[in-house]
Order: sequence, then C-alpha cells, then structure tokens
Amino acid sequence: MTQLESAKAGNITDEMRSVAAAEGIAPDRLCSEIAAGHVVIPKNIHRSFSPRGIGKGLHTKVNANIGTSPSRCNLEEELAKLDAAVSAGADAVMDLSTGGDLDDTLRKILERSPVMIGTVPIYKSVSRMLAAGRTCVELTADGIFDEIETQCRAGVDFITVHCGITRQTLRVLKGCSRMMGMVSRGGSLIAEWIARNESENPLYAQYDRLLEIARAHDVTLSLGDGLRPGTIFDAQDRAQISELVVLGELAGRAREAGVQVMIEGPGHVPLNRIASDMKLQQGLCGQAPYYVLGPLPTDIAAGYDHITGAIGGAIAAANGADFLCYVTPAEHLALPGVEDVREGVIASKIAAHIGDLEKGMPAAWTRDREMTAARSRFDWTAMFKHALDPEKARRMRNQSEDKDREVCTMCGDFCALKTYARAVEEK
Amino acid sequence: MTQLESAKAGNITDEMRSVAAAEGIAPDRLCSEIAAGHVVIPKNIHRSFSPRGIGKGLHTKVNANIGTSPSRCNLEEELAKLDAAVSAGADAVMDLSTGGDLDDTLRKILERSPVMIGTVPIYKSVSRMLAAGRTCVELTADGIFDEIETQCRAGVDFITVHCGITRQTLRVLKGCSRMMGMVSRGGSLIAEWIARNESENPLYAQYDRLLEIARAHDVTLSLGDGLRPGTIFDAQDRAQISELVVLGELAGRAREAGVQVMIEGPGHVPLNRIASDMKLQQGLCGQAPYYVLGPLPTDIAAGYDHITGAIGGAIAAANGADFLCYVTPAEHLALPGVEDVREGVIASKIAAHIGDLEKGMPAAWTRDREMTAARSRFDWTAMFKHALDPEKARRMRNQSEDKDREVCTMCGDFCALKTYARAVEEK
Repeated sequence: MTQLESAKAGNITDEMRSVAAAEGIAPDRLCSEIAAGHVVIPKNIHRSFSPRGIGKGLHTKVNANIGTSPSRCNLEEELAKLDAAVSAGADAVMDLSTGGDLDDTLRKILERSPVMIGTVPIYKSVSRMLAAGRTCVELTADGIFDEIETQCRAGVDFITVHCGITRQTLRVLKGCSRMMGMVSRGGSLIAEWIARNESENPLYAQYDRLLEIARAHDVTLSLGDGLRPGTIFDAQDRAQISELVVLGELAGRAREAGVQVMIEGPGHVPLNRIASDMKLQQGLCGQAPYYVLGPLPTDIAAGYDHITGAIGGAIAAANGADFLCYVTPAEHLALPGVEDVREGVIASKIAAHIGDLEKGMPAAWTRDREMTAARSRFDWTAMFKHALDPEKARRMRNQSEDKDREVCTMCGDFCALKTYARAVEEK
Repeated sequence: MTQLESAKAGNITDEMRSVAAAEGIAPDRLCSEIAAGHVVIPKNIHRSFSPRGIGKGLHTKVNANIGTSPSRCNLEEELAKLDAAVSAGADAVMDLSTGGDLDDTLRKILERSPVMIGTVPIYKSVSRMLAAGRTCVELTADGIFDEIETQCRAGVDFITVHCGITRQTLRVLKGCSRMMGMVSRGGSLIAEWIARNESENPLYAQYDRLLEIARAHDVTLSLGDGLRPGTIFDAQDRAQISELVVLGELAGRAREAGVQVMIEGPGHVPLNRIASDMKLQQGLCGQAPYYVLGPLPTDIAAGYDHITGAIGGAIAAANGADFLCYVTPAEHLALPGVEDVREGVIASKIAAHIGDLEKGMPAAWTRDREMTAARSRFDWTAMFKHALDPEKARRMRNQSEDKDREVCTMCGDFCALKTYARAVEEK
C-alpha cells in the first residue's frame, strides 16, 4: 500500500508518525491531509531513511539538484555536493546526472543519502541514446517506461515526469509569442519526440501505465512543468497555464489510483505575479503540493541568482509553495560546484524559513524568538546555535576585532542596547 | 537657494536637468516632484559631482555604510570600501567613522567619492567625547549643532538626525514590551542624553536651528528612525509609529523652510508587514522619500543578512521605498570588509532592480528584455554586458568546462532552447 492508500484507509503508517512528530502536528491530521492529496511523503518502499512530508500545514522544504554531465563527470564531486546539500539543510536532492555510469552514480547517491532522492528519468533515457550515437526521437514508449521502472526499483523516492507536454499544450505554445520558447530540458525532449514521431507523449497517452509503476514502489510523481517561463516576459502565458490545467487533471487521476503526486512550477516570474501563481495552482490542482524552481523575479542577476531565487522563493512560500528547488550562484553560467551547492541551499532555506514565518508555523517563530532573546543578552553561544548556518556565523564573528568583548561588533563602544539600558536605568 | 527652493520658484537647476536626463524623465516633472517634497537631490553646495535624485518616479537607489571604528581604524581600507561600493553600483555612501582622525577621514572620503556622501553627525560628536574620556551626556546643544555645521561646511550631502527621539516618543517606548529596546546607535545616545540631562532633545527642541544650517549648505536631512524595531517581534509597535508621526510633522516643517528631507525606516519587519509599512510612511510623511534599512524579514540568518535584506528590500522597493540601505553578510557579526561591502551592494541592487520592475520603470524592463534576448541567441558578450555584475558573470562562465561551446552550460548537450528549436523546425 502507498502512503496515500494507507491514508485513505485511515491507517496511520510509521512514516506518517515520524513526519507528524518532526512537524509537531497530530498524526491523524497529517493522515487526513495525505488522504486529501494535500501532503505527500516521498519515500520509495525499497529505501529506509527518516522521511519528510511536503505540503499543506508542513514546513516548507528545500531541494538541491546535483549530477554529472558528459563534460564534468566526477562521482566523488557529486557525492561531496550531496553531503554539502544535506549538511546545509536540504530536505531532498535530485540526481540529474547525464554523464558517466548513470546507474552506478544513482546507486551510490541512493546509498549515501539520508534524505529523499528524486530523478528525471527521461534524462537517463536520452543520455543512453546519445552515448550510443542516437537521438531522443528514437526512444520507444517501452524504453521510456522501462527506464522509469528501473529507477523505481532502484529506490528513487520521487520522479519528475513531463506528462503535461502534449500535442494540445504544444499547439497552445506555438500560438504564444514567447521570447524564450522552452527552457525545460525534459519538456523540450518530449516536444521533439512528439514532433518527430507525430505521436502523443507516451507519459500522457499511457499515463495509467506510469501510475501502475509509481504505485508499485510508492514513488511520488512530480508532474513537471515543461512549459514554465524562461524569462519574466513569458510568465503566466496561455502555454504555462494550459499545461497547469492538464497537470491538475492528471493529479486527480493519480490520487484516484492511490499514487502520491505533486506539481512543479516556475521559473521566471515578475514579483507581483508570484502570489497569484501560487493561488492559481492551488485552485487548478486541488491543493496538490507545489514544487517551484526559484521563482526568479528578474533575469539580470547571473552570478547571484541564489539571491534572486531567495526573493522569489520567500514570496512563493509565504503564499503557499510547499517545496522550493534551490537556485545556485552558478545558474545560467556554469554547473554548480560544492560551494555553489552550499550557498544555494542556504539561500533557499532563508526563503523557506521566511515562508514558514508567514505560514504561522510555531517552530519558525520560536526560532526567531530564541535568536532575538540570545541577541538581547549578548549570548553568542545561543546565537550561533539558532543561526541558520552556525559555522559561518561563528567564523565571521571570530574574525572580528571585538570578538572577545561583550558587544555585538557592529556598534562597538556605541552599543545601542547598552546605551538605552543606561538611559532607562533608575537613578 | 536649495534645490527645493529653486523647485518651488519653478527654476530648473543644472542638478535637476542632470538627474532628469539620467532618469529619463522630463525636467519639469522632476521639478514639480521636488517642489512637492516627493523627490530630493542630496548635493551639498560645496561639492561637485554628478548628482542623483531619490524619490517618487525615480529609480530605487542604494546606500552603502562604511567607516572606521576604534578597534578597526584603517583609512586605506575605508577608501577601498568606498571604491568597491561605487564600482558595485552604490548611489550613496555613508561615512559612519568613529575611530582615528575623524575630520581627515571624512575629508578624504568626500574628495574621493563620485557619489553623494552622508554622515550621522552625532557619532563624531560622541566619539570625540569618548576619546576625551567623557560621555555623550556631557554634550551641549551648542556642541551638537557646531559639529553638524562643521560637517555641512565640509561638504556632506545628507545627514541622519534623530529628531524623533523625544520625551514623548521615549515615554511611548517605555510602555511597549519590546524584546530589543533600542537598536539605533544614534537614537540610543540621544535617549541617554535626554534621560540624564532631563531635557528635551536639542535636535527636536531647536529644530529650526537645524533647518537653518541645512538650508545654508543645501544639506538634505535624513530624519533617523531611532525607534526602529531590532527584531521582527518589535515591528510596527506604538513606539515606532509614534516616532514616524513626529518625523512626518518635522518633514513638513523642513519643506516649509526650503530644506530637502527624507525619512528613515526599518529594520526588522515580518514579510507581510513590509508593504503596509511603506504605505503608512507615505501617508504619514506626505510622500517624503523613504530610506529603509533592509528590511530583514527574519532574525536567524546571521552571515547571510545581505540575502535577508534583499528579500525585504525587494518588497519594500516594490511598494514604494525609494532608497535602500544595504546590509552586508557581516551584519550582526562583525564590521564588514571590502568583499562584504561588494556583496552587500550587489544584493541591494538586485532588490532595487526588482523594485524598479514593479514600479514599472521602462529602463528596468528594457534591461531584462535585452538580457533575455541575449540569452535566447546565446550571445555571451551581450549577457555579460546586461548582467548586474559583468565581471563575476564572466569569471563564472569562464570556469565552466563548456565555456567555448554555444550552450548555456547548465544543460550542456540537452539545451532546451535548441531541442525545442528542432521540435518546431519545418520538416
């Protein structure tokens, strides 16, 4: 039985108990939200780790993408990225490898990871074709589903599947005057396959087959947004929204089949459209968990897109996004290194935490309260403890000339807290 | 005549023409906004540089704070910070020095800076007292005004003056159960002075004297928010708002006296209160330009508060903030180094630019459009040109394995743009 099937039957699983405890909510409330499709617990039946939930009423989660490519293929580096992401607080990691021994890479990542692992199966399907001197157009439906099944058997917890790229949504896309066309790798490969084979997307046409595989291993489907905008100019156009409508329909079918499902979202979105994008998804997709990339409210900050993504992510989370895919400083420029991964995760964690404050999560408010209390009494040990990145906070403080004095360093002798304390002292 | 007096008389000055040209608006429209007190051009009559405007209808500006302290006092380092701030795009720099030869430091900064320079005169007044083994309580009203006049004669373009710390607003503060009391250095010094001398704040009681000095040199007053919240728990309490009411009254008096004036704002503010804080200021202060610090929507991100500040700053600017004071990664931990200054300015520039997109500034949209166009045609030279930090973007790209290939590096052989182009090719 999948977590969803158990929840529908009213059975509280060990995973639900574990997630409820971590979130500080009642297990039966969590069970109801899972049954309604508002929460997922991505955890493959073949894996064993401490699971986390994603969705309504839970803390906002963060994903980090890692993976080899043909031009940069070093398994040790990817494992170091995995470690860096987890130690910085990532709740999930996606292996997007396209270079080297793909099966071995995924296996090593699954073995090592203490958090949920996701993949985009079509990447490996196509990588294998390219390595054999062929193209994605030559893939068969059976080949696509076989790769998905292989990865589900290997233990992947969630998979991105671009089921919403269909003849109809591509027709809508052609009618949009986009500046950036398609920027989804997986989505564009499906688009090419559809166009060249003059056939419907197998992930859509044979969606029940996908559901059957996912159900057998309790793999959570992450319905990919192949038509997400790649610039703020393309945001919320008819292509993006018609795909979201299809994803909403498919989410409903997944729930009926007992398969856990979440929806992927943009991307590049002007600041004032981020909140409405979150609300639209909630309405169109029956409050399925929403997994967004960024969003990025400007296109000009290459080299600093982790900051741009944190700005968009905070507003997204505050308005209901459940799961933030990180953006690293390397976005749009290069493949991220270990330090980029770390910076990207921390930036997304800041956004997620601000979202949690806005969502009224008691634990988030407690953490800010404890930090404030520590700050007001100059308790550096407690400040480091409550900081998002205790190690960096401690390192920066220790570089300060005033590190051994009871001042907060910025003000030095002009400490406002102490000056004000003197001002209100009884004489 | 000050810029405000000229504007009221309908005289378009060279400064107005220069600012209007840089902003891409009509000089007479700018002149009307200055006359109404919605825009200021901080530029001391004794200085010569290319001025910038701050306020309604103009691009959002960014300030960087630099300055020596008794424990870290190196003029060369401060000048390097000035250069770093300016090269990263700062529109203003504040010299907050409290250590070493204060007059010489300010003079050197004024000589070297191509942008407007601000100070907090009370810092120097108190530094001199402390250096002489005395306390701020011993300052006299004459001493305070003499220091202000000295700095205005030296050429400072805008000064922060904590005129809103009064017996009445301090009484309101005492009635608030704040976690962090006062976190404004200048504000707390005035509070101590008031308490110990049992007298009203000279900057409030003798406000006309301040106006006379400012008017004589066309120094813009930046009315400091001594009661700004120092944690999200203290935001928008009665203390903060009663000070803002006083600042609104004082802004009106400044305008009547022909003195340019802007208002300083928080600080630590929960995300969902940032927009309302901007609207409140506009209403209470007759749309005087609003100069905010951050704001920071969480307290737990020490080491990354430039990111937290960019999140708050973007929302503030989108809702009408005119001038963002940067926050560096060192905030709450140490004095910023040169690299921190650079990172802080860039983070604030991202926030300012996102704010400008939301404000509908045509030049901001053009820049994003040009970046998108460059990206869609793989034109790296143009992408670097339009990037907020061309140097960093180029450096990161050049570290990539794929730097000599016409791919955008992240996707490599899986370039979505190219795949989709193949998909829609005519057969």
